[in-house]
Amino acid sequence: MRYPPLLTDLYELTMLAGYLEEGMAEKQAIFDLFFRTNPFEGGYAVFAGLEPALDYLEGLRFLPEELEYLQQLGIFKPHFIEFLREFRFRGTVTAPPEGTAVFANEPLLTVEGTLAEAQFVETALLNIINFQTLVATKAARITHAAAGAPVIEFGMRRAHGPNGALSCARAACVGGVRSTSNVQAGMIYGLPIRGTHAHSWVQAFPNELAAFMAYADAFPDSSILLVDTYDTLKSGIPHAITVAAELRERGHELHGVRLDSGDLAFLSRESRRMFDEAGFPAVKIVASNELDEFVIDSIRDEGGRVDIYGVGTKLATCSGAGALGGVYKLVAVDGQPKLKVTSDIAKATLPGKKRVMRVVGEDGGMIQDVICLEGDDEPHGGETVYDPRNPLQHTSLPQKAALHELRQVVMKHGHRTQPPEPLALMADRSERELLRLPQGCLRLINPHRYKVSISRQLNELRNGLIEKVLKGV
Amino acid sequence: MRYPPLLTDLYELTMLAGYLEEGMAEKQAIFDLFFRTNPFEGGYAVFAGLEPALDYLEGLRFLPEELEYLQQLGIFKPHFIEFLREFRFRGTVTAPPEGTAVFANEPLLTVEGTLAEAQFVETALLNIINFQTLVATKAARITHAAAGAPVIEFGMRRAHGPNGALSCARAACVGGVRSTSNVQAGMIYGLPIRGTHAHSWVQAFPNELAAFMAYADAFPDSSILLVDTYDTLKSGIPHAITVAAELRERGHELHGVRLDSGDLAFLSRESRRMFDEAGFPAVKIVASNELDEFVIDSIRDEGGRVDIYGVGTKLATCSGAGALGGVYKLVAVDGQPKLKVTSDIAKATLPGKKRVMRVVGEDGGMIQDVICLEGDDEPHGGETVYDPRNPLQHTSLPQKAALHELRQVVMKHGHRTQPPEPLALMADRSERELLRLPQGCLRLINPHRYKVSISRQLNELRNGLIEKVLKGV
Repeated sequence: MRYPPLLTDLYELTMLAGYLEEGMAEKQAIFDLFFRTNPFEGGYAVFAGLEPALDYLEGLRFLPEELEYLQQLGIFKPHFIEFLREFRFRGTVTAPPEGTAVFANEPLLTVEGTLAEAQFVETALLNIINFQTLVATKAARITHAAAGAPVIEFGMRRAHGPNGALSCARAACVGGVRSTSNVQAGMIYGLPIRGTHAHSWVQAFPNELAAFMAYADAFPDSSILLVDTYDTLKSGIPHAITVAAELRERGHELHGVRLDSGDLAFLSRESRRMFDEAGFPAVKIVASNELDEFVIDSIRDEGGRVDIYGVGTKLATCSGAGALGGVYKLVAVDGQPKLKVTSDIAKATLPGKKRVMRVVGEDGGMIQDVICLEGDDEPHGGETVYDPRNPLQHTSLPQKAALHELRQVVMKHGHRTQPPEPLALMADRSERELLRLPQGCLRLINPHRYKVSISRQLNELRNGLIEKVLKGV
Repeated sequence: MRYPPLLTDLYELTMLAGYLEEGMAEKQAIFDLFFRTNPFEGGYAVFAGLEPALDYLEGLRFLPEELEYLQQLGIFKPHFIEFLREFRFRGTVTAPPEGTAVFANEPLLTVEGTLAEAQFVETALLNIINFQTLVATKAARITHAAAGAPVIEFGMRRAHGPNGALSCARAACVGGVRSTSNVQAGMIYGLPIRGTHAHSWVQAFPNELAAFMAYADAFPDSSILLVDTYDTLKSGIPHAITVAAELRERGHELHGVRLDSGDLAFLSRESRRMFDEAGFPAVKIVASNELDEFVIDSIRDEGGRVDIYGVGTKLATCSGAGALGGVYKLVAVDGQPKLKVTSDIAKATLPGKKRVMRVVGEDGGMIQDVICLEGDDEPHGGETVYDPRNPLQHTSLPQKAALHELRQVVMKHGHRTQPPEPLALMADRSERELLRLPQGCLRLINPHRYKVSISRQLNELRNGLIEKVLKGV
């Protein structure tokens, strides 16, 4: 699917035209994409959206009709339109693999190239990475709450438009939600697709039992019956048991039932008991209805017997966060480190080209991250590192820890350095990553704050630049 | 842009296969699309998404590769795949025009056709209408708060993926936000596009003044300078005034400045004063940074002097609502009215084919809506109508009111009955509609609840069906 180059903010084009005018378009520049606060007031985020971002960068070119549209706007000079005709992204991108646990203030993507190309791609990269990372993080929170019970993405009807639904299914998979009701996502991303039936199916028949029988006839080995059209325990479950018995006589097994309203903890316990007593201990209980990580957590807490969770609206709309506040900031031009200060010094950006090192304990668990400058000596055990929000606060890295590079070069001269990864591999990665996090980071409320420090050299560079800026004004 | 038929929940396909199997696919059915609660705890919603929905319905057909994908899933029989090859939507759709003020529990779309076609389109219609109506409503709330000051949609980078951004710009326009930073939306929907520049532009130059000069050079008649990279009042505005003076000497005028951080009410007042004193009363002050209807309302309350609001994240992500809970319910099969009851009788659906009448006062103001059955006598002044949530509660329609039909047939035999409307016309409509609402419905917090009643006949039909269902179980 082509990501059109005009799917961007107008200012990317006006700045590009401006840089060209000023003879600055070919200067070398470095931008970092990062966010300042973990989403959902959570302890981590799951990085996602890299492959779609690289697709965009590799495929970036303007079609004649797009250039015509720009021309007739009357704000761009003809030589700029000609410049766009040959415009490509030929830069370098550094990033962690999708499914990696990441934290506030760490550079996720670093984009190096000409000021023209590296600036222009800002809006598209933010659009892709912000949403994918947000959904993947929500999905990870939900799958973690489900504690091993499969989760199905059901969000299509409440997602932000057709493509919002598709992107959502993809990113949810990166975060560990490995199946979806979205058939197109199944076709495009190879995800397993799952479904039941609607209340309207039951209403279209003379009665609930007839409706269940008909559905089971059509899908004797995969039926999941929606049991709450009239009354879950008095009508739905007894009818489902009748159907299960009929199916068994014909050599099939009812796959499951879906609870879609009421007290899901109570109803799932009762349904489980009724099926078990009737001799159907393998019938799966699927629960849906405004589920999220908090509701799932309570259902489990209250002894609910849900086998599969269908999560829709709250996943597709990332309830509790709205947006990932990812930003894209210039950190170097012409080899000179740059920084942006605001009225709040703690929010000053981290200048220069950087590496992100993950400090890992002997058991493989994550201890903390350290951001350092590319040219510096590698940080080592025992070294003093600094809190980027407060230069007075510092700490020592553990003596015995190993430091791993979090990111790698994924694009060079505008081409991928390696083939795209399969989605399932990313889902495996995010599941493993969650196990490596300090336990407290997984807490849904008031989680432990994972430490992200900066190296001494980066701290000094930054403090020096802040002073220069403050004096310069 | 094609909306692929597989962009749907799997259960639409399994139910379709089931209906075919049961010989029920050709039965005539009627479905209503409606929502149960106004979004944003608000007093109204603005209907949007009709044209994209009709595009979908008109273009609905399966491509060979889509059928191949379905076939290899191994859950569908070959004759179903053959059925899908010729599958089209040939039904009838009734709806209000986009930009109409609508309320909880009113049927928005009514879809009539075979059970097969009318059921199948559920997920896609919900996906389109839910999101578009939600954004249009948010946009209307925001433009109403801005009280005549133009609002620009800036949400691209935080929208739900590429298409989420595009749909957002469209729906925002229906709700009265008539320009966008999204260039693609400009090209596709003919929307005016607007923009400024980023902080990185300022950082890329040796200093702020040089950056402003360069941008004004490139766009001497349309520059909006971002003034908060260092310090808005000490640096940004004075530099912008210098640039404005230089431009004037060369026969141009600075178009505006953008404030993107800090106390926007205070900063806009001070900026206005500084520009006025310097002789530039026409320079526009644009404000952005996490704006929504509440923040805009406070800025105006505090005497802020903002001329144009740039609204991004909170519009694109519909902050405060997440999703419109639109549902799609079967209301008749084979001419028989159907209803769905839940444990909460007040939430029982409204059975049968219905009309929505808007009761309008002599001044053109909206008084209330009445839902009646299609075959019934038209409700008239003085008639008793009922609260759908409580059959004991009833009221009389005013004697002198006129009743207008809210909806019309917009598609017949699968084809539009009229050409698509231009977006600007929808935006005009929504603005007019807001003026016709009872004043209290516009309140941002705890608004007046607009009355939506049902006719006596509909009330009786519904009560009868509820009793039948309750006895039947």
